[in-house]
Amino acid sequence: MKFVSYTDQGQPGYGLVSDDTVHPVDPAFREQFGDLRSVLTGSALHRAEAAATGEPLALADVSLLPVIPNPGKIVGVGMNYSAHIAEMGRQPPAWPALFTRFPDSIVGHGQPIIRPQVSDHYDFEGELAVIIGRPARHVAAADAQRYIAGYSCFLDGSIRDYQRHTSQFIAGKNFRHSGAFGPMLVTPDEIPDLDAARLTTRVSGELMQQGHIGDLCIGIGRIIEYLSGIFRLEPGDVILTGTPSGVGAAREPQRWLEPGDVVEVSIDDLGTLRNEVADELR
Amino acid sequence: MKFVSYTDQGQPGYGLVSDDTVHPVDPAFREQFGDLRSVLTGSALHRAEAAATGEPLALADVSLLPVIPNPGKIVGVGMNYSAHIAEMGRQPPAWPALFTRFPDSIVGHGQPIIRPQVSDHYDFEGELAVIIGRPARHVAAADAQRYIAGYSCFLDGSIRDYQRHTSQFIAGKNFRHSGAFGPMLVTPDEIPDLDAARLTTRVSGELMQQGHIGDLCIGIGRIIEYLSGIFRLEPGDVILTGTPSGVGAAREPQRWLEPGDVVEVSIDDLGTLRNEVADELR
Repeated sequence: MKFVSYTDQGQPGYGLVSDDTVHPVDPAFREQFGDLRSVLTGSALHRAEAAATGEPLALADVSLLPVIPNPGKIVGVGMNYSAHIAEMGRQPPAWPALFTRFPDSIVGHGQPIIRPQVSDHYDFEGELAVIIGRPARHVAAADAQRYIAGYSCFLDGSIRDYQRHTSQFIAGKNFRHSGAFGPMLVTPDEIPDLDAARLTTRVSGELMQQGHIGDLCIGIGRIIEYLSGIFRLEPGDVILTGTPSGVGAAREPQRWLEPGDVVEVSIDDLGTLRNEVADELR
Repeated sequence: MKFVSYTDQGQPGYGLVSDDTVHPVDPAFREQFGDLRSVLTGSALHRAEAAATGEPLALADVSLLPVIPNPGKIVGVGMNYSAHIAEMGRQPPAWPALFTRFPDSIVGHGQPIIRPQVSDHYDFEGELAVIIGRPARHVAAADAQRYIAGYSCFLDGSIRDYQRHTSQFIAGKNFRHSGAFGPMLVTPDEIPDLDAARLTTRVSGELMQQGHIGDLCIGIGRIIEYLSGIFRLEPGDVILTGTPSGVGAAREPQRWLEPGDVVEVSIDDLGTLRNEVADELR
């Protein structure tokens, strides 16, 4: 199953995706489950599929929102691909190096991403996002798969000078509308071999990053084990698993995003998340 | 004005505080503004004062919630008192060293705080919390005061070994129910001289931390300027301003919190936030 969250003529909705069409859930179901996060909280993804009987809409005609527009937690793992750790001049961490993003730091597929007024060191990081499907507390790595609702692409847009103002990454990871999440939630049964799935990031057509999900230093199971030992992961929470090498800050010459650049994060079976850079309005 | 958020016989509410009594807002007002965050969003704190005509309750008879139970952003500034920077062996940052806490990492005044299963390196940090009253984006330090709804005490409970697993503080700052926020929101007009206000932290009666708000390395105005250049601060958002020296990790011998310990964070004019430590249930 594949799901999107969207607005259609200003009204928020969500629905099942097939090909280039979104099938909204019927009004009675929508009354019960107001958004995709509520569907996950109610363990109702299969019921949502059955309820996706609304008037079909062309995907191109709706404005996509972040797959989960209102996650309670967005947690990122930094430094989780060996070649990226090397290019950033850091050491492989023994534990997941965590940061967080606030929900207003991201937009949906196709929406403008924003280069801020205060910096032109705007960098791209293509990532796999894991979407939690069930409350998870003290979960062992081997059991983690059962807590995953699905996957999506994520652009972990980063303002590098702010990220390096201090030892803490948070400032650089939370600029308003600097990241993106989408285009859609894809359930695990749609993905024959996640480890073999290739992740690529292109900027204005040029291949910048390439890796395989299987290259993650700290795998998804271990990440969920670590996080669920700290707090309770809730349905709709989002985990960013890390980025491969090739980010703009580590290139020679450095490659910062500029207005008009188009960033495309693609993962096999998950589609392509595409966003164009605009300058923050002054 | 002083406000608290609470549950009374399981029902959430909020109201105005005078002495040891809370005056709930009337049902019509409560219908319009469901919680204290909504009141701030509606710029309705003075109207809430006028609407606080409900049947008075003894403060001792209600269960206090975090002052704002559902903030959109909780942002902390680490390393912001000189003596604490020195005791932790770090350098004074030129910029605010940011971390975040998720709302489920904190409880209200009087509720148990939890030492987790996975660590006994549970430390205390008493702090001043600033509560935002108006949307703030690109605000200059000199104008920041106008965006502040009020202040409260905060216990930034920290799991030190997790905080030091990697370079990033997030893991150690987000353990479920490891911190506390309260007892109440106090509006700026109630505080004659915030810089002169003394902050103390006591553990089971013993004075552990002592400082003055005026000792902050990076003041509240500069913090709001920095944050509002990154994202939009919203009504109900919470800023933790940093902790003075004397934390458990820096003492000889080290002093970790144990079940039965009582932590009291007091700030002149803001009252005392008191919480007892319990072990996480196994």
